[in-house]
This record gives sequence, C-alpha cells and structure tokens, in this order.
Amino acid sequence: MIILGIDPGVISTGYGAIKIKEGKASLVDYGVIKIDKKHELPARLSGIYNGVSDVCQHFKPDAIALEEIFFSKNARTAITVGHTRGAVILAAVHQEIEVFSYTPLQIKQTVSGYGRADKNQMQRMVQMTLRLQKVPRPDHAADALAAAICHYYIFRTTSKLEYQGGRGENR
Amino acid sequence: MIILGIDPGVISTGYGAIKIKEGKASLVDYGVIKIDKKHELPARLSGIYNGVSDVCQHFKPDAIALEEIFFSKNARTAITVGHTRGAVILAAVHQEIEVFSYTPLQIKQTVSGYGRADKNQMQRMVQMTLRLQKVPRPDHAADALAAAICHYYIFRTTSKLEYQGGRGENR
Repeated sequence: MIILGIDPGVISTGYGAIKIKEGKASLVDYGVIKIDKKHELPARLSGIYNGVSDVCQHFKPDAIALEEIFFSKNARTAITVGHTRGAVILAAVHQEIEVFSYTPLQIKQTVSGYGRADKNQMQRMVQMTLRLQKVPRPDHAADALAAAICHYYIFRTTSKLEYQGGRGENR
Repeated sequence: MIILGIDPGVISTGYGAIKIKEGKASLVDYGVIKIDKKHELPARLSGIYNGVSDVCQHFKPDAIALEEIFFSKNARTAITVGHTRGAVILAAVHQEIEVFSYTPLQIKQTVSGYGRADKNQMQRMVQMTLRLQKVPRPDHAADALAAAICHYYIFRTTSKLEYQGGRGENR
C-alpha cells in the first residue's frame, strides 16, 4: 500500500510517499512541487494541479493524506492556501484517489504521541519512523511525510477496530 | 464576445453570461451550479469543476470574470471559499479561457458608479444594464452578472486606451 502525503503551500507544495509492507512504513520518495510566484493565479494553480497529477501517476498511491487547515494568520492567506488545496484535491479526484484530511493536532498526536510537538520533534519522529539517515528537507516535504504516516496509523487502527467487529462496538 | 461571470459559493456557485455586440451588453443566460452539501469536500469540488466546465462548453465565453475576495468573517470560511475558487479557476484554465479577477470595490464602482452600492442597488443596475424585466435571482447569479458587466466596462476602457497609443501614454 502506498500513501502519499501532500502539504499544500502557495509557492511550494511538499509531497512524501511511503510504502506499507508487513506492517512497516518505509520511505518511497519525497520532494516539492515548486511554482513560479511571478505567474498569475490561474497558471500557478494549473502548475500545482499538473504537479500533483504527475506525482500521483508516478507513485500510484492508494490514498492521499492532507493537513486540514482551520485558521491562518489572516483571511487573505487562508484564501490563497484554500485555492492551492482545491487544486490538490481536484487533481486527486481526477486520478480517482481517495483524499483524507487530518487536523494538525491529529497529525502531531498520531505521529509523535504529543499534540504540542514542535517542528523539530515532528521531523525527528518522521526520520525515526521511516528509518532515514537525516531529517527530510524542506519543511513542506517533512510535513507531507508526517501526514502520510498519520494516515497510516489511523487507517491501521480503524482497520483493526473494524476487524474486531466494527467501530460501533468499540465506542 | 461572450463574458461569463462566476460567483463562487460553498453550496451554490452563480454564473451569468453576457454578450457584447455593437458596444451593447445583453443577457445570454444566468443560473446557479448547486452542490449537495452532504457530499465530502472532494466530491463537492469535483461537482463545481464539472459544472463550470459544462457552462464554459455551453456558452463558449471569451473571458471569465470573478470577484476577488480579500477578507471574510472567519478564516475557515475563507479557506472554504478558496477551495471553490480554486476549482472554478482550474476549470477555466483547462477550458483555455482567460480569468480576470476584480475586487468588490471595482465591481461596485464600475457597474453602479458608486463603491458603496448595496446589494439592491447593484441588482437594479444589472437589471438596467441588461434591460431585464426583473431583477436576476438568486443573489449568486446577480453577482456573477455584475462581475461580467464589470469586466466588459474595464475591458472596453483598456482597449480604448490601448488604441489611443497604449496605456503607458495615459498614465
């Protein structure tokens, strides 16, 4: 099973693909889709859409994990990030890949076991989980990998609960 | 020349197509693309993308005019509207139609001559400009028509300036 994490940014959108085999997560690849900030919005969104489509075609993920954004320093940034997220989600839908969104708190708690983990702690946990020699860079790629790991952990838990008689019995 | 105005909303996205012939704007059609709010975000965005693509294929506009959004009551709404705008813009790009964004102030000033015009005043101006028997409903469709009229007026002014020796000479 391949999970693709994506961290949408205005200029640079991170991605990170992990592979789940025999209950272990390992790295497939990570990187960023860079957009020329001199371009107008339609061309930038088109670039992100094409970049995500290419990444999906390359890694053929079974699921895409995205960070959900609840707030931002200002509404203008929120709209801009919203545009980018819209383009990422549409690319996923058009590639027929299911998209899962997780809040920053869910990702921190699931990946590091601590909802207030800082950026460094999160990056170390990503490094440890995937047994990488160094911390993944840039930040957008590390965040994308964290989203992918989060999806794996939550998916695994949900699957186990379902296997034991469905979520309903465990509530 | 056909101009398509679009007013992206979370549940309902308005559109309005106008035709420019011999220096006069007239109505082609208007309406809304409705999205089932029970659907998850990816399906909603896909619905908006498909709806805008269909409208573009039907009316074959030369340009699309959108309202630019600078602020919102809260960042969560801003992100949601951002998602929708992203889907609308991508649909336009994929249909190879140029997208123009105008601020609410630009639209009000250009269409009604008054930057603080309220919703009723704007709808009356749209009705008068297009010589309609009644005010266009719902609001999203009227707003979409206002964006289209704004683009026509600004496009006309810019073209005239360029004809007289380029914008640079008029600054």
